[in-house]
Amino acid sequence: MIIERAAGLFNSLGYYRASLSDLMQATGLEKGGIYNHFSSKDELAIAAFEHAVSLAGARLLSTVKKEEDSFKKLIAFIEGFESLATEPVLPGGCPLLNCAIENDDGNPLLREKVRVALVKLLAFAEDLIGSAQEKGELNDSVIAKELAVFIISSLEGAMMLSRLYQSSDSMKVVAENLKSHLQSLKS
Amino acid sequence: MIIERAAGLFNSLGYYRASLSDLMQATGLEKGGIYNHFSSKDELAIAAFEHAVSLAGARLLSTVKKEEDSFKKLIAFIEGFESLATEPVLPGGCPLLNCAIENDDGNPLLREKVRVALVKLLAFAEDLIGSAQEKGELNDSVIAKELAVFIISSLEGAMMLSRLYQSSDSMKVVAENLKSHLQSLKS
Repeated sequence: MIIERAAGLFNSLGYYRASLSDLMQATGLEKGGIYNHFSSKDELAIAAFEHAVSLAGARLLSTVKKEEDSFKKLIAFIEGFESLATEPVLPGGCPLLNCAIENDDGNPLLREKVRVALVKLLAFAEDLIGSAQEKGELNDSVIAKELAVFIISSLEGAMMLSRLYQSSDSMKVVAENLKSHLQSLKS
Repeated sequence: MIIERAAGLFNSLGYYRASLSDLMQATGLEKGGIYNHFSSKDELAIAAFEHAVSLAGARLLSTVKKEEDSFKKLIAFIEGFESLATEPVLPGGCPLLNCAIENDDGNPLLREKVRVALVKLLAFAEDLIGSAQEKGELNDSVIAKELAVFIISSLEGAMMLSRLYQSSDSMKVVAENLKSHLQSLKS
């Protein structure tokens, strides 16, 4: 419960902006209560970030798992990501994008965590692409790793636009464009 | 000079994290010297953001202007954006992306400025797409506004990955994928 509430707060305000008093208000705990569970703001921020990522990851995984075919799993991955804009798992947008932008020049512990999480996300997409190729559902000339970078970049950029304009239109447009692009790569 | 130095600082650290003493150090001015020119941190942040956006915009415009044909101008737009990752105009990455992520839940003045700037960038890309269609260089079935959203989203997401991993590989991959995608849309 502490982690869940802290995750929404950090994801909305950012790591630097979320103060101890913001955290006390969000969790309903006194300072001592927070430091009883976490030795520092960094430790709480890392636990909160990992919780946020696991929520988003679980959404993606459950969407992908509903499909049997490899190509359909890849389409479901895009739709699962789209659903994170239309029905967010926590306030504040994509935790990977938020944490990456804030900490590329910021907290080295959080930067390392977001690097690892994004590598996992890219590998997950790459595996889906590779499986679709193995099943003969996607053109062999596609470089799985590069297509994964293209898909994740487009979806993260769409998340930025959707959050900024408080409308999921950009995410819908990007998801549709990606799906057409994948259709054009079918073998 | 004050604005230029403040622009690099705000773009690297973010609006909330950049303190008055950071600003004094970056600009070489005392507190009074800064407030002589700007009535508040907000006013300086807005001037710095607009300076950062104008630097990036000038790069894009000069790259696009080098080409005569509409389709080539669109390709040059992507290459100009790519150059902002490989040869940045100021420290800290893309000012639009940074300011959007920080202020979608943050400073309403900066949020409004970044909304306006992104609308202009989207309109610029849309115009290039529309011109290429008018000249018969791009398929009429393409919806210019939607393709513009797809292009900008992909490039901004690539900027996030490139900054996070301190490598422009992701930007190169996304620029190449976008260029192939545009080739497939030629009429």
